[in-house]
Amino acid sequence: MEEYLAGLSFADEQATASLDEAMRYSLLAPAKRIRPVLALATGAALGRDPAELLPLAAGLELIHTYSLIHDDLPAMDDDALRRGRPTCHVAYGEDVAILAGDGLFAEALRVVLERQAGEPAAVLAAVRELVAAAGVGGMVGGQYLDVTARGELDAAALRHLHELKTGRLIGASIVCVLLLEQLDQPATMPFRRFAVELGVLFQIVDDILDVTGDEAALGKPRGSDERHGKPTYVSVFGLDRARELAADSHHKARAALAEASAETELLGQIADYVLTRQR
Amino acid sequence: MEEYLAGLSFADEQATASLDEAMRYSLLAPAKRIRPVLALATGAALGRDPAELLPLAAGLELIHTYSLIHDDLPAMDDDALRRGRPTCHVAYGEDVAILAGDGLFAEALRVVLERQAGEPAAVLAAVRELVAAAGVGGMVGGQYLDVTARGELDAAALRHLHELKTGRLIGASIVCVLLLEQLDQPATMPFRRFAVELGVLFQIVDDILDVTGDEAALGKPRGSDERHGKPTYVSVFGLDRARELAADSHHKARAALAEASAETELLGQIADYVLTRQR
Repeated sequence: MEEYLAGLSFADEQATASLDEAMRYSLLAPAKRIRPVLALATGAALGRDPAELLPLAAGLELIHTYSLIHDDLPAMDDDALRRGRPTCHVAYGEDVAILAGDGLFAEALRVVLERQAGEPAAVLAAVRELVAAAGVGGMVGGQYLDVTARGELDAAALRHLHELKTGRLIGASIVCVLLLEQLDQPATMPFRRFAVELGVLFQIVDDILDVTGDEAALGKPRGSDERHGKPTYVSVFGLDRARELAADSHHKARAALAEASAETELLGQIADYVLTRQR
Repeated sequence: MEEYLAGLSFADEQATASLDEAMRYSLLAPAKRIRPVLALATGAALGRDPAELLPLAAGLELIHTYSLIHDDLPAMDDDALRRGRPTCHVAYGEDVAILAGDGLFAEALRVVLERQAGEPAAVLAAVRELVAAAGVGGMVGGQYLDVTARGELDAAALRHLHELKTGRLIGASIVCVLLLEQLDQPATMPFRRFAVELGVLFQIVDDILDVTGDEAALGKPRGSDERHGKPTYVSVFGLDRARELAADSHHKARAALAEASAETELLGQIADYVLTRQR
């Protein structure tokens, strides 16, 4: 995956080489690559050679990186450190960071549309899922709820915010592969349930790590949620209850997988990793 | 067109209704709708009912609107007035404006992917053209050149900047229709030449109007290019020579159309309008 991402370049002329550099600066910082890994593992569960899904996997990571760059902007979360490096706007200026994010979104879709093998109707369906996950009913809508959240959210509103902000794209990492493989709707259901629970699990653990994690491992300062006054699973439920909820989501995710007619062990291990990760 | 755009809504829940409002605020401000009109006129030239191309036409306008919102941001051109209204960040705040732009890009592609009729392979090709025109080799790259341009640009660099920043999406307004119609490559050439010249013409006239235009008609203050220290066709060539260049591009655009085997009168009238427009 790293090799494929490192091989991408977005400018085919000298004039925009520095924009390309800013995009690759954020893209190639050390990162977990959860979304690509999920896509490749879903493919593996369905007997697909991972190499054939690299364009989709890369597209997911580009979209995620774009969202991080924009979320970090001064007008949004105003964060200075990300993935262990100065954020894009700190390193390249705010104007370039906005454009680097915009560019990564467009180039993400280009990579998928120009390189992803598959039936045209299947590629179309996968890209439809990608942009829906990135749009107002997904990532952008979730970030909007995040920046406009006033005071406390209740548990349902908190879960909904994260379903949009991170859950939809994590889900798309799995669902896009099902669409590319043109799986029958009933056969997709265990994977879809898994995707939803994994998204919830991912966010709960993120919130726990923001309180308990190691800053060097996280690549960003601990406690940033609290400083930003953001409601989290920890602020709403407390640390102990948040840990129980994580274990519960992990259990549900594993249980959903058990119902799939596929080789899902790798996906199960990803769920284990998401539960126990330290960064 | 206006009716179709006004009928779009991007949030299907109350929680993100204000984001939807910010997106529609910018989208539905009085505007020329050059890109949608070009797409529909290209369809008409090829015998296609305009109603069948409304999703593509809307997608083009959403992408254009997204670029205006981001270009106007304080970190970019810092403009307060657009289309006769306070810019999106002035009306809704900078964070919401960034997200409104991001959201419009994603929703633009959703409209096309979910609603545009056509062979899957043809829709795929059209969306590929759209995102290429929006990306680093198009709109985003051109805006990057614009915000980072230092001092004077020579004529070639100026033309290149605008080819990316506005020309590529204006071209895509025509080319996407050719792709949807699955026209043979040779038959597309006159349209493609027309598209390139029309993009140049559009920009030259834009630069002239920024010096000579009526502020009420323009919906923004005159002289903003000079205040921003932006190189323009007028600053590089002077007003008289810029007018000659506009006439020359108009002539070339008309000549290209004459070689197309299609009913291109409507497209020709659009070229006339772009030359003589007062806003």
